[in-house]
Amino acid sequence: MYSVTVRDHLMVAHSFRGAVFGPAQRLHGATFVVDATFRRRELDADNIVLDIGLATRELGGLVAELNYRNLDEEPDFAGVNTTTEFLARVVADRLVERIDARARGLDSVAVTLHESHVAWASYEREL
Amino acid sequence: MYSVTVRDHLMVAHSFRGAVFGPAQRLHGATFVVDATFRRRELDADNIVLDIGLATRELGGLVAELNYRNLDEEPDFAGVNTTTEFLARVVADRLVERIDARARGLDSVAVTLHESHVAWASYEREL
Amino acid sequence: MYSVTVRDHLMVAHSFRGAVFGPAQRLHGATFVVDATFRRRELDADNIVLDIGLATRELGGLVAELNYRNLDEEPDFAGVNTTTEFLARVVADRLVERIDARARGLDSVAVTLHESHVAWASYEREL
Amino acid sequence: MYSVTVRDHLMVAHSFRGAVFGPAQRLHGATFVVDATFRRRELDADNIVLDIGLATRELGGLVAELNYRNLDEEPDFAGVNTTTEFLARVVADRLVERIDARARGLDSVAVTLHESHVAWASYEREL
Amino acid sequence: MYSVTVRDHLMVAHSFRGAVFGPAQRLHGATFVVDATFRRRELDADNIVLDIGLATRELGGLVAELNYRNLDEEPDFAGVNTTTEFLARVVADRLVERIDARARGLDSVAVTLHESHVAWASYEREL
Amino acid sequence: MYSVTVRDHLMVAHSFRGAVFGPAQRLHGATFVVDATFRRRELDADNIVLDIGLATRELGGLVAELNYRNLDEEPDFAGVNTTTEFLARVVADRLVERIDARARGLDSVAVTLHESHVAWASYEREL
Repeated sequence: MYSVTVRDHLMVAHSFRGAVFGPAQRLHGATFVVDATFRRRELDADNIVLDIGLATRELGGLVAELNYRNLDEEPDFAGVNTTTEFLARVVADRLVERIDARARGLDSVAVTLHESHVAWASYEREL
Repeated sequence: MYSVTVRDHLMVAHSFRGAVFGPAQRLHGATFVVDATFRRRELDADNIVLDIGLATRELGGLVAELNYRNLDEEPDFAGVNTTTEFLARVVADRLVERIDARARGLDSVAVTLHESHVAWASYEREL
Repeated sequence: MYSVTVRDHLMVAHSFRGAVFGPAQRLHGATFVVDATFRRRELDADNIVLDIGLATRELGGLVAELNYRNLDEEPDFAGVNTTTEFLARVVADRLVERIDARARGLDSVAVTLHESHVAWASYEREL
Repeated sequence: MYSVTVRDHLMVAHSFRGAVFGPAQRLHGATFVVDATFRRRELDADNIVLDIGLATRELGGLVAELNYRNLDEEPDFAGVNTTTEFLARVVADRLVERIDARARGLDSVAVTLHESHVAWASYEREL
Repeated sequence: MYSVTVRDHLMVAHSFRGAVFGPAQRLHGATFVVDATFRRRELDADNIVLDIGLATRELGGLVAELNYRNLDEEPDFAGVNTTTEFLARVVADRLVERIDARARGLDSVAVTLHESHVAWASYEREL
Repeated sequence: MYSVTVRDHLMVAHSFRGAVFGPAQRLHGATFVVDATFRRRELDADNIVLDIGLATRELGGLVAELNYRNLDEEPDFAGVNTTTEFLARVVADRLVERIDARARGLDSVAVTLHESHVAWASYEREL
């Protein structure tokens, strides 16, 4: 199995609901360093999984939609805890759609969001 | 599949027995940067795999039990080569027990120990 | 010249005022990975600049005062752009006071705040 | 499952053929930071997956064969796009042969090549 | 003293002349991860050293001029060993000019080029 | 001012004497990732501060003298607290001698030892 990963980041505010979150129930924020991984069983005729330039541009476009925002006020996330693991899925699902991942022959997409140097979360889905 | 990872570290002395280890047969030491990963097929009602705060505290407690010690003198490791890959398993097994990982609905736990910027080892177990 | 550095992090929301900030004028957030550096011309009788354990605890205490907050609502920062470089100074000044840096014989304190994997800012002051 | 990973790097020139590569069709170059991962279901009698010293030496020997070269002029790669994902496979295949991975009881080998701080590619093969 | 740093990268081919370079006399290549640091004694009225967005764009523009090229064929570098330390100066000098660093009140500019995970070089100039 | 930095690492056991060290008074260990920086006001005729290959070999040789040892039993360190900042000086002083730094026209040498992902220490000396 082959994979290609590209990295970008986004900077958002949000708060959580639920006693489990302790002080993170207050409005706070995070930089999420985003790693998007694309997997394919075989390389294509150009010897690539997916063009790294294209992957970078598409991840950049997707990140721009979320960047510099208070997620608590985004209609898409109304009433939802926008945890790191949940956002990893949001990014993965949007990427799959944005690059039409199945049509490109990709076998899976995984996204990791690093919320600090000591904590990160991932979501991976088969295609 | 979702995952959450938290990072801590421990600083220990130890030595190895066996010609394969060369100069590492002498008493020496290591900083192990420890990454503990918890995987779950679905998020819980709070939209998390496991509370990152709880994961951090439990990993910290576990690490404190091993930290600042000469592993050659720990009864738990008598007669055992405490290699990086072996210690990855020790940390994973202790974490599974400490956080009652099955009861929390986790599907697997993986631990990576970085012994330097150019070498690391992992152990992953299904639950 | 000797130095010792310890790392921690904080997660905050804030917004900026001024056209130069573009989309960052909206309420957003950041994880700041904080590196605090203490410099001393000579080591003390224990052969240290400053105990790393103490430095870690004091930086941790200081970070906890700022963590999981919306800086726009903190009285200390009313009407102020809490940019990365400004916050680096806040952390440095508070650290100097908190550890009584001059009395400990330190010659300077520097703080770097990493706002992402591609941008960071620092402030250094002589003592 | 256990794994051990060692890191090295190589510095090469190359160019790509195909419109998808845009400006990378020109002769350019890359530093590839190479992570080689060896997996094994059970540890051996020394409590290791593979000796880290041996893995480091063998990866170093393999990297030296490719290092400081223009890949466009290497007979092994005539008419081939030496993309990051393709080179990950080359390194993995050569490592498997070089260390006689099956005879050592390894279950899989994976190689990641980091071409920058924001892009990397991997190849993994079962044994 | 305050500073702000932004990171980008470039991927180039080149070769060196001189026995000291050993195998690096052959045509090879490198990814240079570029850190550009801007220092200022006092913050401006917006509480910044320099807008991070502007710094990122200008570094990006400068990097694009050098990227995906064989430096041996660039007229600007004819007959010159384009070592990492030399290129650090090229990037610093071009940045100073490009952003009109003195007019912006900057006190110095420093550039670090990482050629691998185990080697990097810097150049700093006062303004 | 120009600089070149190379990285290596060493793995040692040691213990400290003095209440300030708390649990680190017990025999424990550390991986020290070592960054050695060489500074020069002007480049030499080859356009370098110091050959990176030579710097890497010399740092490697120096590190090998200390590696895989219990520093408490090294005659050179009898009765001395081998703290991270103290060891940074030991490495710097030995490097200056080993490469005959003054004769090579270097202006200063700095060494940073990273004892973990959250703590490091440095020593710099003018020549």
